[in-house]
Amino acid sequence: MDEGSGGESGARRARMRSRMERLYPIPRSLTGDGVRETLRVLAESAPPQAPLRTVRVPSGTEVFDWTIGDEWNVREAYVADASGRHVVDFAEHNLHLVGYSVPVRTRLSLTDLRPHLHTLPDHPDWIPYRTSYYHRDWGFCLAQRTLDTLEDGEYDVVVDATLEPGELVYGELLVPGEGDEEVIVTSHVCHPSLANDNLSGLTVAMELAAWVAARPRRYNYRFVFAPGTIGVLTWLSRNPQTIPRIRHGLVLTGLGGGGRLVWKRTRHGRRPVDVAAAHVVRRLDGEVRPYSPYGYDERQFNAVGFDLPVGRLSRTPHGEYPEYHTSADDLDFVTDDELEESFGALTRIVDVLEGDAHYVNLSPYGEPQLGARGLYPTMGGRAASDAVMAMLWTLAYADGSTSLVEVADLADLDFEQVRRAADDLLGAGLLAPAES
Amino acid sequence: MDEGSGGESGARRARMRSRMERLYPIPRSLTGDGVRETLRVLAESAPPQAPLRTVRVPSGTEVFDWTIGDEWNVREAYVADASGRHVVDFAEHNLHLVGYSVPVRTRLSLTDLRPHLHTLPDHPDWIPYRTSYYHRDWGFCLAQRTLDTLEDGEYDVVVDATLEPGELVYGELLVPGEGDEEVIVTSHVCHPSLANDNLSGLTVAMELAAWVAARPRRYNYRFVFAPGTIGVLTWLSRNPQTIPRIRHGLVLTGLGGGGRLVWKRTRHGRRPVDVAAAHVVRRLDGEVRPYSPYGYDERQFNAVGFDLPVGRLSRTPHGEYPEYHTSADDLDFVTDDELEESFGALTRIVDVLEGDAHYVNLSPYGEPQLGARGLYPTMGGRAASDAVMAMLWTLAYADGSTSLVEVADLADLDFEQVRRAADDLLGAGLLAPAES
Amino acid sequence: MDEGSGGESGARRARMRSRMERLYPIPRSLTGDGVRETLRVLAESAPPQAPLRTVRVPSGTEVFDWTIGDEWNVREAYVADASGRHVVDFAEHNLHLVGYSVPVRTRLSLTDLRPHLHTLPDHPDWIPYRTSYYHRDWGFCLAQRTLDTLEDGEYDVVVDATLEPGELVYGELLVPGEGDEEVIVTSHVCHPSLANDNLSGLTVAMELAAWVAARPRRYNYRFVFAPGTIGVLTWLSRNPQTIPRIRHGLVLTGLGGGGRLVWKRTRHGRRPVDVAAAHVVRRLDGEVRPYSPYGYDERQFNAVGFDLPVGRLSRTPHGEYPEYHTSADDLDFVTDDELEESFGALTRIVDVLEGDAHYVNLSPYGEPQLGARGLYPTMGGRAASDAVMAMLWTLAYADGSTSLVEVADLADLDFEQVRRAADDLLGAGLLAPAES
Repeated sequence: MDEGSGGESGARRARMRSRMERLYPIPRSLTGDGVRETLRVLAESAPPQAPLRTVRVPSGTEVFDWTIGDEWNVREAYVADASGRHVVDFAEHNLHLVGYSVPVRTRLSLTDLRPHLHTLPDHPDWIPYRTSYYHRDWGFCLAQRTLDTLEDGEYDVVVDATLEPGELVYGELLVPGEGDEEVIVTSHVCHPSLANDNLSGLTVAMELAAWVAARPRRYNYRFVFAPGTIGVLTWLSRNPQTIPRIRHGLVLTGLGGGGRLVWKRTRHGRRPVDVAAAHVVRRLDGEVRPYSPYGYDERQFNAVGFDLPVGRLSRTPHGEYPEYHTSADDLDFVTDDELEESFGALTRIVDVLEGDAHYVNLSPYGEPQLGARGLYPTMGGRAASDAVMAMLWTLAYADGSTSLVEVADLADLDFEQVRRAADDLLGAGLLAPAES
Repeated sequence: MDEGSGGESGARRARMRSRMERLYPIPRSLTGDGVRETLRVLAESAPPQAPLRTVRVPSGTEVFDWTIGDEWNVREAYVADASGRHVVDFAEHNLHLVGYSVPVRTRLSLTDLRPHLHTLPDHPDWIPYRTSYYHRDWGFCLAQRTLDTLEDGEYDVVVDATLEPGELVYGELLVPGEGDEEVIVTSHVCHPSLANDNLSGLTVAMELAAWVAARPRRYNYRFVFAPGTIGVLTWLSRNPQTIPRIRHGLVLTGLGGGGRLVWKRTRHGRRPVDVAAAHVVRRLDGEVRPYSPYGYDERQFNAVGFDLPVGRLSRTPHGEYPEYHTSADDLDFVTDDELEESFGALTRIVDVLEGDAHYVNLSPYGEPQLGARGLYPTMGGRAASDAVMAMLWTLAYADGSTSLVEVADLADLDFEQVRRAADDLLGAGLLAPAES
Repeated sequence: MDEGSGGESGARRARMRSRMERLYPIPRSLTGDGVRETLRVLAESAPPQAPLRTVRVPSGTEVFDWTIGDEWNVREAYVADASGRHVVDFAEHNLHLVGYSVPVRTRLSLTDLRPHLHTLPDHPDWIPYRTSYYHRDWGFCLAQRTLDTLEDGEYDVVVDATLEPGELVYGELLVPGEGDEEVIVTSHVCHPSLANDNLSGLTVAMELAAWVAARPRRYNYRFVFAPGTIGVLTWLSRNPQTIPRIRHGLVLTGLGGGGRLVWKRTRHGRRPVDVAAAHVVRRLDGEVRPYSPYGYDERQFNAVGFDLPVGRLSRTPHGEYPEYHTSADDLDFVTDDELEESFGALTRIVDVLEGDAHYVNLSPYGEPQLGARGLYPTMGGRAASDAVMAMLWTLAYADGSTSLVEVADLADLDFEQVRRAADDLLGAGLLAPAES
């Protein structure tokens, strides 16, 4: 791990921030030019040996229980008062338009317009985020304070949008490993100007891809940047040969925005990725929660038909912070420290996934002489260091059936310490890999 | 469930109260006219299609390790002072006479009488309840304050009782279901004027029988009203063909008398009736306790030779309230609200026993499109309702091995909500019953 | 159990104290005359039919991963100032010399001497305990206050010791039982003048041997008094035929010194000795801790190659009290009450190991009539006594698969009560031993 090095960390923070700033104004949705533009920006950060590939799937394609819908693009959208002043304008903030609003050009009284206007009375300065993907409708979102200033009278409503056959687009990036087994990392690309949900996930994922690509690795690491639900289902429908190779998976979202780290378990709850992530997150004073079928794309991976070991890393989860799905989830809401800590947690989880293993003790009849091998402090009578304790725990449970991360949990030590102990013991000929 | 409907609930409360008032003064014991009279009163409330049958078994019959003893009936019993005044009289309160007192007619000094007098010094106004079923003796129970007024001198003691070969009597009522499997509900009829222990159990059980009889049902429901221990053992000894059909069982007692609902688990602890009752009781802020071999007739059903899945529903258990086994356990000690809540809990437990099932997800590859089937709110971006969550949880665990009540526990939802979700999903063709 | 009898207990306290007082000044180490002398003192308390045998194994013998080192004996060792005054002297306190110090005779400035002087600045009056078994070095331990008085100048250093081929010595005592199965009890003999660590273990172990020898018993009880680590490994290497017979094991150390009793589990955590010891220790308000590979000789027995069911009984464990491994662990630090309570806990653990068994209920169809067999109070209506409850619990779980100590834990009763109940029920023909 190198997240401690000031210079490296500083450069990474700057990259993550700059990428978010470029992505923030792009109007994203399930489909449309915004997603394509987002993938272009992400592609610039892809590791040289692992370019970000864009996959395009036409509208009308059937995807399990779903069908890819029409593509939605917006040229302009506003509400203007009698004087022609735009009182709500998509050009000012892309949350102002309800996602997938159908084209409309009409004049309405304020009374008739009101059912199409969405506000947050409890947070009168914030614009809410609303969509209507699967029900043809139109609407505008605005601050309650703006709504309060609107006077009775007629308003011109313009939604100059297209909603017509096109394509769904997602991005995919593969950092190849030694064998066939894969770790899948996904992050949704369908939310417009919301920084924590989910520019935070996207910008950290790109750093993780680069970090993984720069190190030796056992697994293939596949990063998928897709629209929520339908996008990930499309990926699943097109990759039946990859699905059986997935050993571990992580959904990344909400990695800034305050609060401690939260690992949401897979449906089964004790998959290896759960053990690894729970170990890391707990040691960072984070929280581990059981699975629930509500949230992000972990829902699709864990569906009974796929049953894949995919959990989710976030900070305070969706719906538990007031800024969630509002204009207050902006670039200031996500700090560099939060992103950096999230990144650090992910690299430690990957370290566990890569480095965890089972060993057998080659000197199992009592404790071996660590001192004679230079592995023990020479003066007796004092307490053992963490390094010595890590060796003792590793030897005590090198029974072929307890993995190193399980040893770390038993010993209340960091995985890194136990991994280092195992390496020292391997070097001293005291351990051997267990036959699998 | 209809316990919410004011009129229905009001009528039920009135019936439960009136039945208790009629039963209260009857002098009950293990045997005798009081039990016969009690069963006659209960029989009046039996559902038309399920009459309460009285079973009579002669004294001397061997019942496993026990033998049915002589029948006990009391004509009169009192202690009179020198002036002939009855200072303690069975006619005033049937707790005044120790249960199964042998006939006696004698004159004693207060000193010689004292060993036969039982009081509660800590509750000087209350009469204790005492019995001497299996040891031939006689005695009187009285308030400490009464004892304190007795002056030295001679007292006439009269117990004009018969203790001679007769019969043990219990009542049985069967509400037939679709198949062979049974739910057994028992409540003891051997306690004299004690309202919570156990007129509360008897009066609620009769309402439950009527409620069950008025609904479609999978199980046979068998209600047994028997004297404690020997009565239930007699039932068990005479029904070897029924025992293997018992799938679930509930002992009902102490359903008023304050405190929250308490489910006492079966000996195995995790039988389906435990899962159902624990679900309901916890959601009503009640308590779930482990099995212990002390209490009511759950002891007999759970004995290693029968090993039946029978738990117990009560409110504050026996021995944990000061009024227990005293004259303070009177009609005021049991409120209509308590009985009604206990009744409501029982109907919810029956709903779980009847409605619990295993399903498989017919659209298992990712989350199915609920919106397209009219099962999802149309405007995205907001939190899901309990109804939607119930569907998502049901689909997520429709793996053929997780039952609906287990889903409800995982989801922290009421069973009724999950059952309704499963019905909606069955209607939409998204679920099918698991092959058993 | 007889630890309650005043006279017996008083005599035992006196014996334990006197043995500690004789052992305290002897300079012990891994090898040498001090260990031989210690074993001679212990041998005086051995039961007549189970003499303490001394086993001698020459230096250079290979023991698994270890080799028995040279024997160490000290004639004199001191630091003298320019005036010839001994400012630190092994003759005054044997903690003053670092264990296994190599011979030296030199004159050094205080500056050059300082790296060889060990103190405890936080406890300026105490002498620390230090050893250098496996790294050839020399040094002295002293109070910080003494060090502070030393003036600059030259000091004569004398360690007149021999470190040359000799032997390792341990003691072994076998109290034979009925069959082949064994309970092993070990206590380390290698620490010099430290009372809690481990004269407390040694003195209690000798009482336990005498107590066990005076009673009928199922198991062989083998007591091993050996130097830590290398001593127990030597015993293990020489007894391959005994190892498979070990059913239970206890390491005894730190049985005085304040704090409540602590059972440290075996590595597997739920061996029968863990169940027995946890039962006893918890009922004495003690604490049960998981295994860790740091501590005393339980480490060797639990190593993956042996995997023996050996746990550890102590009071406050090593390293958790400030007096640990200092001169403050003296005879006043260990009280007679603590030793006596520890002894009582051990006899209760042995009672469980000896008396635990599985039974089947011979009257399994409901509760048998205890009253008819004189096992039940005759007057009904009141709470059951502990004795009755112990019978009810025993009958309820006499299913052939729940042992008596498990019943005691379920029932929250002392094992002795449940054992007595089982004996009463056996006497009444209500129980039979389960076929094993």
